[in-house]
Amino acid sequence: MADAPFDVVGVGNAIVDVIAQSDDNDLARLDLNKGTMTLIDDAQAEWLYSEMNAGIETSGGSAANTLAGIASLGGRGAYIGKVRDDQLGTVFSHDIKAVGVDFPVRPATEGPSTARCLIFVTPDANRTMQTYLGVSVMLGPKDIDPETIGGAQITYLEGYLFDRDEAKEAFVKAAELAHAAGRRVALTLSDPFCVDRHRASFRHLVEGHVDIVFANHDEITSLYETDSFDDAVGKLVGKVDIAAVTRGADGSVIVTANEVVEVAAEPVEKVVDTTGAGDLYAAGVLYGLTQGYELSVAGRIGSICAAEVISHYGARPEVSLMDLVKEKLG
Amino acid sequence: MADAPFDVVGVGNAIVDVIAQSDDNDLARLDLNKGTMTLIDDAQAEWLYSEMNAGIETSGGSAANTLAGIASLGGRGAYIGKVRDDQLGTVFSHDIKAVGVDFPVRPATEGPSTARCLIFVTPDANRTMQTYLGVSVMLGPKDIDPETIGGAQITYLEGYLFDRDEAKEAFVKAAELAHAAGRRVALTLSDPFCVDRHRASFRHLVEGHVDIVFANHDEITSLYETDSFDDAVGKLVGKVDIAAVTRGADGSVIVTANEVVEVAAEPVEKVVDTTGAGDLYAAGVLYGLTQGYELSVAGRIGSICAAEVISHYGARPEVSLMDLVKEKLG
Repeated sequence: MADAPFDVVGVGNAIVDVIAQSDDNDLARLDLNKGTMTLIDDAQAEWLYSEMNAGIETSGGSAANTLAGIASLGGRGAYIGKVRDDQLGTVFSHDIKAVGVDFPVRPATEGPSTARCLIFVTPDANRTMQTYLGVSVMLGPKDIDPETIGGAQITYLEGYLFDRDEAKEAFVKAAELAHAAGRRVALTLSDPFCVDRHRASFRHLVEGHVDIVFANHDEITSLYETDSFDDAVGKLVGKVDIAAVTRGADGSVIVTANEVVEVAAEPVEKVVDTTGAGDLYAAGVLYGLTQGYELSVAGRIGSICAAEVISHYGARPEVSLMDLVKEKLG
Repeated sequence: MADAPFDVVGVGNAIVDVIAQSDDNDLARLDLNKGTMTLIDDAQAEWLYSEMNAGIETSGGSAANTLAGIASLGGRGAYIGKVRDDQLGTVFSHDIKAVGVDFPVRPATEGPSTARCLIFVTPDANRTMQTYLGVSVMLGPKDIDPETIGGAQITYLEGYLFDRDEAKEAFVKAAELAHAAGRRVALTLSDPFCVDRHRASFRHLVEGHVDIVFANHDEITSLYETDSFDDAVGKLVGKVDIAAVTRGADGSVIVTANEVVEVAAEPVEKVVDTTGAGDLYAAGVLYGLTQGYELSVAGRIGSICAAEVISHYGARPEVSLMDLVKEKLG
């Protein structure tokens, strides 16, 4: 395998997050399904934003958060995602580059505006996300740069992108390019409803193109339409090399054909906002895998990164994850 | 005096803050003068933004932060400031309305874009601000709505606006309307360099149109070109009814012709970012004054509000200041 200039390249929805404090009454009044991500159109986005409390804007997007985490760990990353040439697009581009992630995609000069995700954070640190995908889903096969994909040890695909056919094609192209270059492909399932909407496509992708899967309990049982977690894990591990499954406060489990590694959650003094927990867990695990660490160590790094991001508002690390991991692992 | 629908109306620069972590080396490399606010043009803003670490965007503007604080205390506020009909302008308008502040100014449909302030926060919690004023300084006399000004117990003017003649005229108009309606006028000096640039105009405004002044040590000594704090306070109190002067960790002092009230700073577990400290102190004092509290109580509320805002990133409160003040004052 050729030397890789990048540890990980992420492919996902380039989104700016709008985060506001909220409560269960707000969610009920706005008819929002707590703890899930829902796709909304332009008009819904405008209405919900007008009903939302004052917030902060911060660059987000699941895979982009993961790449920001990998950069903070000292890893070399690239990101492929689509923004418009508008103010929020400038914010997104600035932030991803400022953390040291390569961003080879040019902003679109026409079409919908940059994607945004309205995130309602309740006092129990849960978050409910309403996403206007805008131009982010206009990502297509032509945006997948073969040099970037071929130059990364792992290509990491974000399930959320599955809501549009052209993006699915981009995924398949990225996976094929990665494998042709002798690299590995990882996928995050992202959301149980996203899995519901695209079960057949996800299974096809997982079974034909993916080596490493990130998922939580609900996503994995939805993928195989079973109530049994063990059953779902068993089915998945028959198809991919590594399945990393998160279990919230109970940590995670990393399963391969030969081993089952239980990973404890890292203790957190106060959970403020769980936005980005899964994204940063993936950052730690992917970084660990590209550095050749054992699965137990990669999982532990994932737990440390997730713990950092849930201890404050926002889905990107506020401290150097490299220093934090050095301190914790000793 | 007629019944007032508003406790306070603020007039200021409507700005979106971009906050990023930074260190002294960054400040030296970018030739920034630590702890001050500098005005920059379009090109400088673009360059500095490209050199800045990844950040978060949050609505700011000194007087707008103060009004957000007054709303959080349960006060009734309005705000007059200028944004463009662009994405950051939408963010600003949304946030100020979402906290319950009346915002009667329509976005401009032409001219420069919405103002932004690049804030470099160092590990010692100090902040260095580089402000692109954009359309915010296009605020002119015609934007000063007589009904809003006449309907507020106190009209609160932000010194930063002084960098353009049309805005100075808007200030004078607002002050005259307020006094014609039997109301009071407050001014914050905002920045020692701002005072340097406009000393004569500030003195003219203070001595002819202002009842309450907010300032810190450097601003007040700059206004009267003296090294003696007592001397400067003495001169100021000859001209205005109330001078509230902040002294950082040493609290503040509120001076009138008859009394000098020393106000202790509220203890803070960890100072994270001092952005907004002066703005929220003013919120507490103005709220206290409009509720008819004694100066010592108004000052104490100011200290409590300032302590809340410096314990996290961003210049607006993250908790209900009404609840916090109730808890602290017992």
